[in-house]
Amino acid sequence: MDSSKSLTLLKIGGNVIDNPSVLESVLRDFSSLQCNKILVHGGGKIASKLMTQLGIVPKMIEGRRITDRETLDVVTMVYAGLINKNIVAALQRLSCNAIGLTGADANLIPAKIRPVKDVDYGFVGDPIPDYVSANTINDIVNMGLVPVIAPITHSEGILLNTNADTVASSVAVAMAKKNRVNLIFCFEKNGVLRNIDDESSVIDFLDQKLYGRYKDDGVISAGMIPKLDNAFAALHANVSEVRICSPEGIHHGGTKIRLK
Amino acid sequence: MDSSKSLTLLKIGGNVIDNPSVLESVLRDFSSLQCNKILVHGGGKIASKLMTQLGIVPKMIEGRRITDRETLDVVTMVYAGLINKNIVAALQRLSCNAIGLTGADANLIPAKIRPVKDVDYGFVGDPIPDYVSANTINDIVNMGLVPVIAPITHSEGILLNTNADTVASSVAVAMAKKNRVNLIFCFEKNGVLRNIDDESSVIDFLDQKLYGRYKDDGVISAGMIPKLDNAFAALHANVSEVRICSPEGIHHGGTKIRLK
Repeated sequence: MDSSKSLTLLKIGGNVIDNPSVLESVLRDFSSLQCNKILVHGGGKIASKLMTQLGIVPKMIEGRRITDRETLDVVTMVYAGLINKNIVAALQRLSCNAIGLTGADANLIPAKIRPVKDVDYGFVGDPIPDYVSANTINDIVNMGLVPVIAPITHSEGILLNTNADTVASSVAVAMAKKNRVNLIFCFEKNGVLRNIDDESSVIDFLDQKLYGRYKDDGVISAGMIPKLDNAFAALHANVSEVRICSPEGIHHGGTKIRLK
Repeated sequence: MDSSKSLTLLKIGGNVIDNPSVLESVLRDFSSLQCNKILVHGGGKIASKLMTQLGIVPKMIEGRRITDRETLDVVTMVYAGLINKNIVAALQRLSCNAIGLTGADANLIPAKIRPVKDVDYGFVGDPIPDYVSANTINDIVNMGLVPVIAPITHSEGILLNTNADTVASSVAVAMAKKNRVNLIFCFEKNGVLRNIDDESSVIDFLDQKLYGRYKDDGVISAGMIPKLDNAFAALHANVSEVRICSPEGIHHGGTKIRLK
């Protein structure tokens, strides 16, 4: 690990994408970060809206979209086309030299098609972290470019719809081999909350020990647990710090997570 | 010019995009080219089809699409998303390490919004050849990557719908500063024809003198003249050779065009 190179990876979720003024403000904060950086974005509601307009009924099981051929076409259009290129354009307006990519481009994020057990998710994939093309991403970043990554990966040239949090943590882990990586998850709440209904109850700091205690005590809501497990997995794989914050907390704020 | 570096830039038009088996065969031929290479693709009928499905009436004046805000969103989805990423995926299947880009990505192709004279084309732009980021494209190519460029450019972060032939020739001209560039326009006919109704009447070779003579004699159809003027302009700007051919003629065939 070359500790001299600091890299921030910001993941923005659907709630940011769906709100143009929040998105604009997040991109302004992101563009002002004085270090190497990568943006990973989620999907938001535009794909579902477009599917409805086209008479395609969105299929969801346990919060995951079932991606048949025509759904894949829509998410490819919306995530890799509309959302990705509008973010790139907005960053270019802010003099941030963004380059929009998916995990299929330059073979950046090879994935496994999700195996069929009880549910056939269709064209859905999970990144293979060891196969992420960290050297290529490093080369792109070292050219002074800012990758903007849409949540689409591929398995041997088959495009796959992919969870954006997993894309973000896989890329963060791969980049941690040569960079000091700060991973920021920007979502709709102010951070990890002690009381899910109280936005002022942000837990400022979490390490593995505290996390275990809060989980045992039922302080942390069930919905946060996969996000936090994902965060600790990234820390165990050499990501330096994970932060979970709201769109207002990109520079400072939210919940800071470290191993100890 | 470093004459040791040969680079082929292939432009494929809408007729290729609209026919999956022809596209597959063209991409196979393209991926087998043993030199640095770039693909520029057009749009085809998918955008118009999607607009119809969404109840947007495509607006055309003199063969050019009028691009209002909602039309721009559709072409961004279709060109930069659906078409671009499916080409990238198909090339990845062929072990060709493609990277899909628009002219907004990495500020590759700055453009001018087309000025309003008799017609307001809306979000339509024309590349500024001198501003094309040839160094960035060279760096990407030298990484062993194969750029696949969608016909969308930008002016200071405003996305612009752009003619794919012009994108191809602008990139070819910019790359000609450091590469020996062969520019191939792949379209629906076997080449420049003596008789537009006879596919066997291909003119094998054209130089400026012959072109002038054929134009004077009315041998070359009016529709080919902008394409050929564009080709000669590229040759005058140091592109080594331009070829106009059908999907079957990518390796050899069609009309070879040189200054003399």
